[in-house]
Amino acid sequence: MSKGNLLEILFIPLEEFRRIQEADIERFEKLGIISDMCRVNALSAVKKAGSGHLGSSFSSLDIVTFLYFEEMNIMQVGIDSPHRDIYFSSKGHDCPGLYSVLTVMGIIPFEKLLKLRRLGGLDGHPDVRIPGIEVNSGSLGMGISKAKGIALAKRMKKNKGRVFVMTGDGELQEGQIWEALQNVAHQKVNDIIVIVDYNKIQTDKPIKEIIGLGDLEKKFSVFGWCVERCNGHNFLELKEVFEKLRKIEDRPKILIADTIKGKGISFMEGPIALEEGEGLYRWHAGAPSDEDYEKGLKELVKKINDRLKRWKVEPISLKIVETREKNRVRLKDIAEKVVNAYSEALVELGEKREDIVVLDADLAADCGLRPFEEKFPERFIECGIAEQDMVSTAGGLALQGFLPIVNSFGVFLASRANEQIYTNACERTKIIYVCHYAGLIPAGPGKSHQSIRDISLFGTLPNCVIIEPCNGKETKLALEWCVNEAKENCMLRLIISPSPRSILLPQNYKFSFGKGVILKEGKDVVVFSYGPVILHEVLTAAEILDKKGISVKVVNMPWINRVNKEWVFEVIKEPKAIFVVDNHYIYGGMGDYLLNVFAENLCKTNKIFHKLGMSQFPECGRPQEVLKYHKLDGESLVLKIEEILEKI
Amino acid sequence: MSKGNLLEILFIPLEEFRRIQEADIERFEKLGIISDMCRVNALSAVKKAGSGHLGSSFSSLDIVTFLYFEEMNIMQVGIDSPHRDIYFSSKGHDCPGLYSVLTVMGIIPFEKLLKLRRLGGLDGHPDVRIPGIEVNSGSLGMGISKAKGIALAKRMKKNKGRVFVMTGDGELQEGQIWEALQNVAHQKVNDIIVIVDYNKIQTDKPIKEIIGLGDLEKKFSVFGWCVERCNGHNFLELKEVFEKLRKIEDRPKILIADTIKGKGISFMEGPIALEEGEGLYRWHAGAPSDEDYEKGLKELVKKINDRLKRWKVEPISLKIVETREKNRVRLKDIAEKVVNAYSEALVELGEKREDIVVLDADLAADCGLRPFEEKFPERFIECGIAEQDMVSTAGGLALQGFLPIVNSFGVFLASRANEQIYTNACERTKIIYVCHYAGLIPAGPGKSHQSIRDISLFGTLPNCVIIEPCNGKETKLALEWCVNEAKENCMLRLIISPSPRSILLPQNYKFSFGKGVILKEGKDVVVFSYGPVILHEVLTAAEILDKKGISVKVVNMPWINRVNKEWVFEVIKEPKAIFVVDNHYIYGGMGDYLLNVFAENLCKTNKIFHKLGMSQFPECGRPQEVLKYHKLDGESLVLKIEEILEKI
Repeated sequence: MSKGNLLEILFIPLEEFRRIQEADIERFEKLGIISDMCRVNALSAVKKAGSGHLGSSFSSLDIVTFLYFEEMNIMQVGIDSPHRDIYFSSKGHDCPGLYSVLTVMGIIPFEKLLKLRRLGGLDGHPDVRIPGIEVNSGSLGMGISKAKGIALAKRMKKNKGRVFVMTGDGELQEGQIWEALQNVAHQKVNDIIVIVDYNKIQTDKPIKEIIGLGDLEKKFSVFGWCVERCNGHNFLELKEVFEKLRKIEDRPKILIADTIKGKGISFMEGPIALEEGEGLYRWHAGAPSDEDYEKGLKELVKKINDRLKRWKVEPISLKIVETREKNRVRLKDIAEKVVNAYSEALVELGEKREDIVVLDADLAADCGLRPFEEKFPERFIECGIAEQDMVSTAGGLALQGFLPIVNSFGVFLASRANEQIYTNACERTKIIYVCHYAGLIPAGPGKSHQSIRDISLFGTLPNCVIIEPCNGKETKLALEWCVNEAKENCMLRLIISPSPRSILLPQNYKFSFGKGVILKEGKDVVVFSYGPVILHEVLTAAEILDKKGISVKVVNMPWINRVNKEWVFEVIKEPKAIFVVDNHYIYGGMGDYLLNVFAENLCKTNKIFHKLGMSQFPECGRPQEVLKYHKLDGESLVLKIEEILEKI
Repeated sequence: MSKGNLLEILFIPLEEFRRIQEADIERFEKLGIISDMCRVNALSAVKKAGSGHLGSSFSSLDIVTFLYFEEMNIMQVGIDSPHRDIYFSSKGHDCPGLYSVLTVMGIIPFEKLLKLRRLGGLDGHPDVRIPGIEVNSGSLGMGISKAKGIALAKRMKKNKGRVFVMTGDGELQEGQIWEALQNVAHQKVNDIIVIVDYNKIQTDKPIKEIIGLGDLEKKFSVFGWCVERCNGHNFLELKEVFEKLRKIEDRPKILIADTIKGKGISFMEGPIALEEGEGLYRWHAGAPSDEDYEKGLKELVKKINDRLKRWKVEPISLKIVETREKNRVRLKDIAEKVVNAYSEALVELGEKREDIVVLDADLAADCGLRPFEEKFPERFIECGIAEQDMVSTAGGLALQGFLPIVNSFGVFLASRANEQIYTNACERTKIIYVCHYAGLIPAGPGKSHQSIRDISLFGTLPNCVIIEPCNGKETKLALEWCVNEAKENCMLRLIISPSPRSILLPQNYKFSFGKGVILKEGKDVVVFSYGPVILHEVLTAAEILDKKGISVKVVNMPWINRVNKEWVFEVIKEPKAIFVVDNHYIYGGMGDYLLNVFAENLCKTNKIFHKLGMSQFPECGRPQEVLKYHKLDGESLVLKIEEILEKI
């Protein structure tokens, strides 16, 4: 696997799965081997992609394998039959495991697995465009409701087949789960089998430390469900429990499957990994290092071959699909990340202002909240994966005179808790909402995670300022402004991705309400944009255009929905054409706010105004390929600007 | 109370409350009398307002009375003390009862009670601008989370006082309730006492027929709460149970209070009223008829006086606050309502298309779904007050080839289920979302119900057409188009309010993608708008302006976010000024879509473009006073149009 300074990424080819499937090995022993072989391919797919969720792919994989190879009727009736059993994962992020199984089933072409999280490959979270994928998921808590719709449809169409839906355990903190449990039981949609992948660790901490689930068996029972429990890694137990469940017809069914997060690679396995991480589990998301990849792969392959040897079957052979230099420097390891500045500023402000309370919905590490949590544990409120509860809790705190700073990924916070945010805003208190992971990039996790609607979702509150800073320095200034100066609610939009270049602000830069800053002078064209990722593309475009004789002024405009008119009219005075590039859907973003400001003036001055941004659902892939796909990379911006200028 | 053809609206003045409070009557007997006196004032406030929620005001009123007069410390420490006990209602619509109690407490001025649901009076749902109101509510399910924030704030500030929050029972169908129950227990926020007003009837049907709640005591227990249960109309039981709860310190507390919806007026009381309504409860919302008002008032007053007599206390005297003609004809009884046309069209289409499934979240009557429900019970899915579950269920149905038509009030559907709608849209199926109660009017229920953000909340889905029809005929055409022609998701925006005039469409009107229709010709100015209510105001403005010599073209544009450019450029050819009047927040509505379409063209033709719409949170009040407040009534539109034209 290792050749000195080279790393080889290895997959088990389909022929090898065929050979093992046909070999003379005891049924469940074989299933375990197949499952571990799928673990190998999931591990390599994630390593190749550079990101992905191994922990829960591995905890759920034995169950998924059992379902497809033993329990469901897909091998009999085919994946296109209306009478097929349907399986999907509500949590969704365990899809590297599911994709591996579906390639073995012949449903997903093997080549696709080599393109996990790549444009035209397999999305970072399930998407129905992929063969065998029944439902889009990635945002938590929707699965049981979806299963209800599917099962009701089957009933109405008199189609056969049951509906299996896998949920996470942390996912049970989402309220929609309990709506669905209540409704499915009332409506007697009894063909649903929910399986809880009960690995007891959510993002990076044990569930009981975030929001404990209490006695799950009793909870589900009292909600009217037939509850069973078994070891989710023991095929015999799985067989027995599913046989039992098949006989239950008067209630919907739920299986609590006790599993181990990271199962299969010893150092990724729940209890050990938690100990090694001093209480933090580090294998939830992200690709392993080169060293860990090699170590993990070696362990898995050894376990597989040891068992094959016992059954006198030849060891498996793996195929090299990529050879790369070891310990490649990755952008995310060296580039500036605004979250670090945010994290520091939060602690600094927390020291000065005792009224600051920080709220989290189980993304504390990604949102840079851990330093604040450690320093001010009494002012840090962990709400688990329950964004609605978090936002309304913030509302209560604000009514009592605190200044809540509410954190989550933008796509979840802005939409899942939208009505709660509106209700808080109606109370005319001040709350700071921080939408992390704003915009199109990173594009690996796919459309459930890319936040391109958050500006529009906050933008129709009459009392909310939306700000997106362009670098660490501006992030600190922005947070300080929100805390100390703002008179209304604030939405701070932070990108989670590193940018290929650090955006440089003038030495004497002041963060001033409604005013942006010119990053590069130019007289033919002015481009407004914001945030580290898109500003880099805009600057790249400007540099190319400059060389072509078109002089481009680039403006960093962190104030998405507030504009100082005097300043902006001065900025647009000379250029004939104005462009706005939104890291957002083309409607409801900064482009629309500026268009409103310019509307009258444009006619008087005969300037061209043009908005650029997203006009489709965001694609999954590497940053550059996705930026290019959506025509938001530097080169595409050049072409667009040239095209528009030609029309003048 | 009745003088032939005149109706008198009567209130019990504060002096009478003082007299009874000081009278020599047994403590709880007196409390019962006070409570019924509050019922009188709540009844009269709702009658005077013309709308309001009596059923649950009455079911919760004995508890509210008990809390303020017996259990809470407000009389001791004052309503402004940081150490005060805090009470609020999560359901919110029971506020006529609460307001009555707060007037007796001297917290709300008595005169305000005469201005229920009027501009500058008492909002139709609680608003913190009103003295004594701690939290905004009206959208369900947020209360326990809010209480958590308040209780945590008290803990951090070392302030005394407990937090009492009343929930409905139907409200327990909302997922956020269960998030909050789980989180409060985990975080040991033990100073919270939740009281469930368990009257067993939701909007207009028994809970068990909508979504049964199962064994509530067990459910709450297993979620980690201390659970008690008592008769919510028996003060002795209430006293004992609250004494017991005061001693529990290791867990948060929940009281299931068995109550009777409409308690106090026999024909409004749950079981009787259900029987009389043949299974439907008709006293949830809305003012009683003149006859029912007089009958109910008489019964309440008699009950009060009978008890006073037993204690040898003079009967109460009431004060006439308004005399009006009996059986006044109300606009809503005679004007066209688009929901009726929608209701008919739904049944007609249901007959032709077997793939249509209708989903409801406990607003079947308001949304005109009952005829479909009765005719096609197997294709009608009641989801209870669980909008997220409803939307994801629709997603599952659509994936299996059905065409779901999802109904709720716009403000709930568009925001509460926003992420679920986005996830469905990503699957590229087709779903029709019907946002009832769209826009500013009716304004009586207040900002939790007025939907002025829904266009922006749906508008950033790349595959969703938004349509608002202007009358019954167009409503049918729109629904038929959505069902039979649309290739993508549809959001149908229906106004629930009657309009003072029926909007007349040309005889040969065709409902044609992206094209509106000219309702009135004119050459100086063109105004685009939509929907019965605002088009009436626009037509009124046009008529006034015409008389003043300004010729106004009025365009009904039902296609909020899709425009046929050829058609629209022809429409705007002659007029020098273009106006768009949105029944929506001024950003993200039709104005912004048209501005985008016109942006380039405006500069070439030197036309003025001006958007009108909402720029603040919607106020509560009668239609005309609120339209005027927001400058969207005919006369304000005239002034604005004249002002803009003067600038040319």
